[in-house]
Amino acid sequence: MDADVIVVGGGVIGTAIAWRAARSGRNVILADPDSSDEPRTSDRASLVAAGLLGPVSESVFGEHDLLTLNLHAIERFPSFNAELERETGRSTGLRTEGTLAVAYDSGDLAALDRLTDFRHSIGLQAERLDARECRRREPFLAPSTRGGVFAAGDLSVDNRRYLAALRAAAAGAGVKTIEEKVTAATGAGVRTETGTMTARQVVVAAGHATRFVDGLPCEVRSAIRPVKGQILRLRHPGRMPHILNHAVRAIVQGHDLYLVPRTDGELVVGATQEERDDRDVTAGAVHDLLRDATTAVPAVSELVFAEASAGLRPGTSDNGPIVGSVGDGAGGGLVIAAGHYRNGILLSAATADAVTALLHGTDPHPAWRPFTPGRFRKATP
Amino acid sequence: MDADVIVVGGGVIGTAIAWRAARSGRNVILADPDSSDEPRTSDRASLVAAGLLGPVSESVFGEHDLLTLNLHAIERFPSFNAELERETGRSTGLRTEGTLAVAYDSGDLAALDRLTDFRHSIGLQAERLDARECRRREPFLAPSTRGGVFAAGDLSVDNRRYLAALRAAAAGAGVKTIEEKVTAATGAGVRTETGTMTARQVVVAAGHATRFVDGLPCEVRSAIRPVKGQILRLRHPGRMPHILNHAVRAIVQGHDLYLVPRTDGELVVGATQEERDDRDVTAGAVHDLLRDATTAVPAVSELVFAEASAGLRPGTSDNGPIVGSVGDGAGGGLVIAAGHYRNGILLSAATADAVTALLHGTDPHPAWRPFTPGRFRKATP
Repeated sequence: MDADVIVVGGGVIGTAIAWRAARSGRNVILADPDSSDEPRTSDRASLVAAGLLGPVSESVFGEHDLLTLNLHAIERFPSFNAELERETGRSTGLRTEGTLAVAYDSGDLAALDRLTDFRHSIGLQAERLDARECRRREPFLAPSTRGGVFAAGDLSVDNRRYLAALRAAAAGAGVKTIEEKVTAATGAGVRTETGTMTARQVVVAAGHATRFVDGLPCEVRSAIRPVKGQILRLRHPGRMPHILNHAVRAIVQGHDLYLVPRTDGELVVGATQEERDDRDVTAGAVHDLLRDATTAVPAVSELVFAEASAGLRPGTSDNGPIVGSVGDGAGGGLVIAAGHYRNGILLSAATADAVTALLHGTDPHPAWRPFTPGRFRKATP
Repeated sequence: MDADVIVVGGGVIGTAIAWRAARSGRNVILADPDSSDEPRTSDRASLVAAGLLGPVSESVFGEHDLLTLNLHAIERFPSFNAELERETGRSTGLRTEGTLAVAYDSGDLAALDRLTDFRHSIGLQAERLDARECRRREPFLAPSTRGGVFAAGDLSVDNRRYLAALRAAAAGAGVKTIEEKVTAATGAGVRTETGTMTARQVVVAAGHATRFVDGLPCEVRSAIRPVKGQILRLRHPGRMPHILNHAVRAIVQGHDLYLVPRTDGELVVGATQEERDDRDVTAGAVHDLLRDATTAVPAVSELVFAEASAGLRPGTSDNGPIVGSVGDGAGGGLVIAAGHYRNGILLSAATADAVTALLHGTDPHPAWRPFTPGRFRKATP
């Protein structure tokens, strides 16, 4: 037996799970082929993300279960993050100013109003602001900004610092990371490109690449698809004051984008959503993101263009994550924790809790019930 | 005596001079503080350039002497380049398809027509093409392209391969390169940050940084100023056919830009002209270049965004280069070869010839006469 638990995948989900499993006394191996943290070469969506944790500002029509889960996740996040920071002595750059959603023209305002009505109808807090109040809170917004909505509960975190802290925590808790690509998994171990490893329990948290792992149920693998996202990292030049105080979501002539400021002067602008599985940064995406960002906040033009990168989100056929046991035994020998789509960082803490529960044979929080792998199993005809 | 000749500056001008001086039998030291070829960190305009050699498509009203010099330079370039390629066994990516200048809207066409009338009036060849003929030659031009002008004589070269070949040639001819920043120069040697070196003759070819070299005449130093240029490098993804056959200059709603294709699938898009001396790549410049490039050639959107970089051109107060002897002796102990502004690569071969002549005490080609350092000397009041 090589370990109690083998975790497949070293993004925020897999690393959070490995850390918590090790903290609960298990002997854990984390397997990931990709040791690089260079976003241009690494196939790791966690590195490309913006780190906006916005259950309210992300909520859309028809995804009530997902909203419930996201609200559970954001409630859990701060204490998890605090423990992570305490245990590692690192900062993850958590910000708590909330999200200001703004509308650029009257069509955009109509769209934002419809979303706000919906959010109010399901009991969410979202404060309508007129144009003047939007610009009072964010003076660099375009003069033409028509209005906005403030979501006080949204958080943001520096996704790269967060992943680095999770890694440090996992290593500190005794997780052994090996640079291996897992090609197949069962409840008793994994096959890698170079050999096999055995364990009492196996967790597959390989993001969009979960679909390539043999041994997982067909219907689960085929429910996962890559959704390409391209994102920019801008930086304030030396003497320039920071142009945004909150995370800003903008609807600009029908296009959605977000601008997430960091305390260190970075401003993350994202993101495209493309049904593609390459990670090329394209001229068209960089152009469109800059066009929309400079339209919403003209001073963005003055920022330094630091990086453009692309990642593959693990999308699913119903936009919800897939967390639960699969395979023969009820004991939870083989667990999937994948398909977190746009909410990987937000859901990471709650996912680690849920998987820890599964590994101990107990039930995860009820908010997870709609998101088992079993939901993709077709009724036998 | 440390060398016969010390050349200050390792861009295309300095390196071409060093190579030719060494080939003429001199013992040459080339001093440059910057050994890196990483365009994000190196202060070397040669690395950022597009390599478009366009005396006709660059010619503008009121710069007749510069045009004459550029025409002399482009006549010289191919044989110089051929010798360089032969001697090093490297390709510089020279392309000879000519430049197609296109106008996007009717205002752009009026501007292009005025330039073409001027070029014809001074005897230059420039063939007017209607919209249909432009698109026949470049099918990916925007459907709205109003018309264009073809300059058959323009060349382009891959500036990075060209500099690398010059370096190899210089090294092969015995030039000794030292990583030192020169702070002062005379006709008998240089002072560096760490010591001094002596030589029979000194050539300062330090681009915009020539203005920082003590010992050069004040009026020459103050005639040189940095003109920031930002430029993009795009790349065709795997299976995509190359979208341009010629270098294309476009006037797009009043903005000038160029798109220079390479045989290896790179497409260089440039360039801003900014009166600034930082080398930050800005969100605004990247946006504007992509906006104009995708407007002129919509398929640019599909290209991979490979690099954005910024460099400082050595501009001068009359836009002409500064090549000639300065200081006391007529023997040419101290020579300046700087201020090449937008035409460094085009002028590199002819500049190497001119400086070689000066070092041998003979006269450069007459086209250089208007470009001596002495022209900035004010008549004594």
